[in-house]
Amino acid sequence: MNQKKQPGAFEPILPVSWSDGGCVLLDQRMLPAEETYLTLRSIGEVAAAIRDMVVRGAPAIGVAAAYGAALSVRKHYVEDANWRQGVEKDLEELEGARPTAANLTWALQRIRAVIAQDRTDPVAAVLAEACEIHRQDIEMNHAMGKLGSGLIDSPCEVVTHCNAGALATGGYGTALGVVRSAWEQGSVTRVFAGETRPWLQGSRLTAWELARDGIPVTVVTDSAMAQLFRARQPAWLIVGADRIAANGDVANKIGTYSLALLAREHGTKVMVVAPTSTVDIGCASGADIPIEKRPGDEIWRATGLAEAPRGIRFENPAFDVTPAEYIDAIVTEKGIVEQPDPERMAAMMTGSAGATTG
Amino acid sequence: MNQKKQPGAFEPILPVSWSDGGCVLLDQRMLPAEETYLTLRSIGEVAAAIRDMVVRGAPAIGVAAAYGAALSVRKHYVEDANWRQGVEKDLEELEGARPTAANLTWALQRIRAVIAQDRTDPVAAVLAEACEIHRQDIEMNHAMGKLGSGLIDSPCEVVTHCNAGALATGGYGTALGVVRSAWEQGSVTRVFAGETRPWLQGSRLTAWELARDGIPVTVVTDSAMAQLFRARQPAWLIVGADRIAANGDVANKIGTYSLALLAREHGTKVMVVAPTSTVDIGCASGADIPIEKRPGDEIWRATGLAEAPRGIRFENPAFDVTPAEYIDAIVTEKGIVEQPDPERMAAMMTGSAGATTG
Repeated sequence: MNQKKQPGAFEPILPVSWSDGGCVLLDQRMLPAEETYLTLRSIGEVAAAIRDMVVRGAPAIGVAAAYGAALSVRKHYVEDANWRQGVEKDLEELEGARPTAANLTWALQRIRAVIAQDRTDPVAAVLAEACEIHRQDIEMNHAMGKLGSGLIDSPCEVVTHCNAGALATGGYGTALGVVRSAWEQGSVTRVFAGETRPWLQGSRLTAWELARDGIPVTVVTDSAMAQLFRARQPAWLIVGADRIAANGDVANKIGTYSLALLAREHGTKVMVVAPTSTVDIGCASGADIPIEKRPGDEIWRATGLAEAPRGIRFENPAFDVTPAEYIDAIVTEKGIVEQPDPERMAAMMTGSAGATTG
Repeated sequence: MNQKKQPGAFEPILPVSWSDGGCVLLDQRMLPAEETYLTLRSIGEVAAAIRDMVVRGAPAIGVAAAYGAALSVRKHYVEDANWRQGVEKDLEELEGARPTAANLTWALQRIRAVIAQDRTDPVAAVLAEACEIHRQDIEMNHAMGKLGSGLIDSPCEVVTHCNAGALATGGYGTALGVVRSAWEQGSVTRVFAGETRPWLQGSRLTAWELARDGIPVTVVTDSAMAQLFRARQPAWLIVGADRIAANGDVANKIGTYSLALLAREHGTKVMVVAPTSTVDIGCASGADIPIEKRPGDEIWRATGLAEAPRGIRFENPAFDVTPAEYIDAIVTEKGIVEQPDPERMAAMMTGSAGATTG
């Protein structure tokens, strides 16, 4: 079932929700031209939607996966005595949909823990856990927004990349949560967004959601950023993350590493904003993070060809790794890690001293 | 008159030529899907073709402008006793078509010098000068190819940006002339080309012309270059130029400055290849070079919208300036300037000692 609606300014954006017994996704492939919602009623549909980028952004993928798991439990618990086995098979399919997003596995581990318990009504229990994952994600984004905006002293311009906004999360946003909070307190005056080829999350999604909230936004091509850093000297580069290693290396949308280098060169500080569900302590460094390679047609289709040109290779990594040494602050819901390293990251994760909690 | 033909591998590519009493342009807006040639019979058509990027690349623009001037002289000399006045008005219109390309003004100054002479047949004299500008451009490209490829010692991978190839010149190419020469001598094994948003000169033009010559080419998005520099450690970044200041600062396609910074960070050397007609001694530094700002629709149309979205700004500078300090070598037909500065640039321009002539 598809539903279209007119975009209304200042309404909270919900890229994913549970409604009418299904997982409702805002179809981000159609933005900004159309705000269309799809209601999905099977985990297979949710997995396909994640793979095809109906929903994207690591935290939003985690929430959608949790709702997808609820659909799986509902189906198998009714049909099958060995329901846990059927559900596990579904969850493994779901986990393969986007290999870099840490939050996908993290959310499904929470669901697995509930499934393992002996609950009277596992269907209701799993759905309740999915709703709780969603509620907490929004809550964490507001907390990170407050923490991160506390780092921005005086009115300034900032740069962002891809979309780490309401659309990438349960709502409100990680990097754009900080931008929203800073805009409210008057410390951000304009956001520069790179268009973010090949999928154009910047020009399609970030520009759309900031303009909807009345936050001044300028879009440039990704390759125009270097001259923009030199000409405007933005105070901060603020981005999200798809997976953060134990040493503070950050996998995020392709192009983030480039911007972090440009930021260093031009005296701009770098802030990464992501909940601790994005941190993968099992990855010692960025070298351990699997990087999704997407099809080359996302590049060559823009040239107007109907078929892949012969004799030309296309490489389309979806993410890159920014080494911790280029990052001034990682902001999570548990606190701020300045100049991240393995010790400071571990201290923040365990809630012990070492991370500023603002 | 439009003519289509099938692309034939290994035939020399001629983006601009004089044939059948008109200026023939390969319509680069249609590549790589179609190889279509337009025959233009008035200077107004040539000016429009330059503005609309039927032909692009500073040296190719210079050659096309010279043929355009020949069309203007042919018209006014027959119709008008005050023909020089009518031609000058035409030339001024032509000069405004692309403000950054130094070769446009340079070519028209050569044409003006011929017009100022008292020639029996000014129509033939101006056409002969245009043909000579074209012939010399191709000759200079072969000379620069030899000089530049002399800097590449052992087999290596290189990066290029935009299109500084046969398509951007009278033929053979500046940066891609060096690549062609190095490929023939076995010292370049693969070219990585950024797609070059917004106009996609990399994925549409550079990939097309290298594949046509059988030179291995990989296309990535512009923002994937940083991780590519880290992963592959290419030996050289080789680019063209639209205008070079007296101190060696280089205006080239937007994104070049970004790549030069990434090159420095990753130990990749930077080579700029351009004929001396691209050097503007009247610009002391890059700050004096006018930078063309193109319309924002080149950015937002990619998002699938039919109209510009409200509340969002788009900035679309067509060029950026790479400071001389990031450039290892400027290769012209007169020699190589290593570590360019005002003295070394002046020595190369005047042909005195100081520049390596290979």
